[in-house]
Amino acid sequence: MDILKEDTIAAIATPFGTGGTGKIRISGPQAYEIGDKIFSSIKKTKKLSKQKTYTAHYGHIKDPENDKTIDEVVAIMMRRPHSFTGENVLEFDCHGGMTPLKSVLDLVLKNGARLAEAGEFSQRAFLNGRIDLAQAEAIIEVINSKTEKSLDLAVDQLNGKLSKKVDQIKEEAVEILAHLEAAIDYPEDEVEGFSPAKLDDKFYHIKEEIDKLLKSSKQGKIYKEGLKTVIVGKPNVGKSSLLNYFLEEKRAIVTDIPGTTRDVIEEYVNLQGIPLKIIDTAGIRKTEDAVEKIGVERTRKSAEKADLVLFMLDISQGITAEDREIYKLIKDKPLIVVVNKTDLPAKTNKKKIEKEFSEHSVLWISLLAEEGLNQLKNDILKEILDEDIDMDSETIVTQSRHKDALVKALEAIERVIVSHETNMPYDFLTIDLKDCLDALGKITGETVADDILDRIFNDFCLGK
Amino acid sequence: MDILKEDTIAAIATPFGTGGTGKIRISGPQAYEIGDKIFSSIKKTKKLSKQKTYTAHYGHIKDPENDKTIDEVVAIMMRRPHSFTGENVLEFDCHGGMTPLKSVLDLVLKNGARLAEAGEFSQRAFLNGRIDLAQAEAIIEVINSKTEKSLDLAVDQLNGKLSKKVDQIKEEAVEILAHLEAAIDYPEDEVEGFSPAKLDDKFYHIKEEIDKLLKSSKQGKIYKEGLKTVIVGKPNVGKSSLLNYFLEEKRAIVTDIPGTTRDVIEEYVNLQGIPLKIIDTAGIRKTEDAVEKIGVERTRKSAEKADLVLFMLDISQGITAEDREIYKLIKDKPLIVVVNKTDLPAKTNKKKIEKEFSEHSVLWISLLAEEGLNQLKNDILKEILDEDIDMDSETIVTQSRHKDALVKALEAIERVIVSHETNMPYDFLTIDLKDCLDALGKITGETVADDILDRIFNDFCLGK
Repeated sequence: MDILKEDTIAAIATPFGTGGTGKIRISGPQAYEIGDKIFSSIKKTKKLSKQKTYTAHYGHIKDPENDKTIDEVVAIMMRRPHSFTGENVLEFDCHGGMTPLKSVLDLVLKNGARLAEAGEFSQRAFLNGRIDLAQAEAIIEVINSKTEKSLDLAVDQLNGKLSKKVDQIKEEAVEILAHLEAAIDYPEDEVEGFSPAKLDDKFYHIKEEIDKLLKSSKQGKIYKEGLKTVIVGKPNVGKSSLLNYFLEEKRAIVTDIPGTTRDVIEEYVNLQGIPLKIIDTAGIRKTEDAVEKIGVERTRKSAEKADLVLFMLDISQGITAEDREIYKLIKDKPLIVVVNKTDLPAKTNKKKIEKEFSEHSVLWISLLAEEGLNQLKNDILKEILDEDIDMDSETIVTQSRHKDALVKALEAIERVIVSHETNMPYDFLTIDLKDCLDALGKITGETVADDILDRIFNDFCLGK
Repeated sequence: MDILKEDTIAAIATPFGTGGTGKIRISGPQAYEIGDKIFSSIKKTKKLSKQKTYTAHYGHIKDPENDKTIDEVVAIMMRRPHSFTGENVLEFDCHGGMTPLKSVLDLVLKNGARLAEAGEFSQRAFLNGRIDLAQAEAIIEVINSKTEKSLDLAVDQLNGKLSKKVDQIKEEAVEILAHLEAAIDYPEDEVEGFSPAKLDDKFYHIKEEIDKLLKSSKQGKIYKEGLKTVIVGKPNVGKSSLLNYFLEEKRAIVTDIPGTTRDVIEEYVNLQGIPLKIIDTAGIRKTEDAVEKIGVERTRKSAEKADLVLFMLDISQGITAEDREIYKLIKDKPLIVVVNKTDLPAKTNKKKIEKEFSEHSVLWISLLAEEGLNQLKNDILKEILDEDIDMDSETIVTQSRHKDALVKALEAIERVIVSHETNMPYDFLTIDLKDCLDALGKITGETVADDILDRIFNDFCLGK
């Protein structure tokens, strides 16, 4: 697949904003030609195009038209094929502000490159065979990972763990397919190493392996996307305090990097590696409006898409009609009843509450006295990690595109098994086995159509 | 001043957020020791600490405690003294997300570095004599520059243009000082090359040079900080349309980088290199409230800090009592009267309007027909760039700290001139001349106290 592109692409590769440094990335056949035009080394030695691969050079970006210095940079060379894209890559580490970066990028574009599309560097890496599709997709997962655990999974995928597992399954299928085809072509001969009696075992083994991967996708989704946890309850029951408790916990995690903007990891709380997205139905800034006190519509909507609902009660008020009305809206969701204000005199008997909400686990906390909060976190984890999920699964599927492919592969292998068990001719088996292989190939990218590829890479950020 | 620090510092050097790549910067004596512990090259060749300066290396960051791969990176080496800080520098170009960057940084900190304070890399560059203080301050100006022109000025300062100019003036002063001191010590002898008759010329020359720099600070401030331009006028006079017109102009400038967040350069319009911060007193989203129709308080407050007020009238309505009330609030500010809706039938004679606002320039536009808008931009420039400002001045002072130092230097040289003209003994002259030198030295940093230094570098962003 080593089809080198003819045009040279460039983009700002670092996040937008202000920082110490920012990078312009250039990839393609004209990368060093452009570098020679606009970069002058401090040492005034060799041209960039004459420099060795994997070297860095300190100098200035100058507009060749008027010799005006645009910025002071470090240029980094990575020659093909041993670069990220597999093409000639040149990077300029500039000062990290929008104006210097934009000015340098403009100059690069003016001198022969075109602006890269989102994900285009990664797409070239894939097209040039540097990485397979699952690895390319892992790049964006590494970047967007929300906890160390999700980073772990993404790095594993980037390093080819999933691809290797899929390739293993494919090899098994290919071997059987070859035997079946030989048996079809030479029905009289015995095919070496092929034992029709063992076919069943082999099909079941493939099914099992696909099944295992498919099951892992449930935890993959949790680690990747996190869990939407919605806090509901009547006014003044302590929803905002609970949210603040979680946010403060989180803040403690990130304060060692001052300057982290709230936008980036805003509502995510890291619960043993699981990103928990906590939503307070009361809204953070809004005060309760007496007219729409219970906020039926708002609560219903928020709870609708929640993976977990924390339903808050106030023990000093007992269970009121409002509480019951709210409960009706949410009782079918995965739910924990959180009874707050245990520091105040109780108006209702604990047993009474447990009885009324006996379908769910009930937990007693005091946000004021900071009691029961660790238990709450444990209970959230327990509620989330139902027994269906094997948290120690070796290879974990995190992407819905992979999951869809695995579902198709599973269906195909199941058809193979049925055909085999009903003694259909081998031709029937090979058709479905090929479908299975085709579905698996979609994960690593061999059998993916161009338009799908474009769509996948378009989800990437710029400069990657 | 080559005092190498004993501790090693590290920080995320790229802007916070999500992008293709992000950089961890490490500087100090343990940089490569840390690198050896956590970086393993793909080629599995030499350790980082054995690699040559200005080379790049592709590999993985691994936690030595459990051999877990944290990220895939390119490591860049810049050995002392030829690095940004003058110390051993190691950079890891990681994937550009908060979790990978934070994870790699955490590992670097766990293995011997401490988190860098804001501006600490630049401070070390200054302390190690790599750059002077004016150059260090230029770094942050490069990063925060809002237009190409302000970037220009900052890059000039970074390259030492201001420092050279200041050094020139200092040299002149030092020469005279040496002569004066010789004349004081050996009153009987003739000091070689010293002509008391020409002293006056020399003092005046120094004064003139300082004056020139000081005058440039007015345009320096404009280029650096931009001009706050407030649009005022009664409801429906076209304020929002004018704002949108300016914003659309701006948007056209930035759209070639998709993904630019509005936060970064939000309200800045680039008017021939001058960043114009345009504020619409009506607010962009708010609709006018009938009760507070004129918004006296809001208008007064916005206009208070404005560098320029655009006072809008609607020619189809003529001049109303409301217009006059608004005008009263703002008439003492630098102001342009912008009469909109010239496409509609006029209710008031043009001459009448010009007469009523004869203290200011009056301009006729139609936002609907897009007429008069280029004229408006020219008039804004004219209003801003009064004759006091020499836009072609060679060296431009952009920082208020430098301006303050120049004011002190000017006062000192003026005292020297007065003393000389009133025939005071040379001793008096030398005291003030030393004050002048001391003030100039503050710009390049020779004579700046440590606490001031700390304050200056604290304004920097992290990782720089």
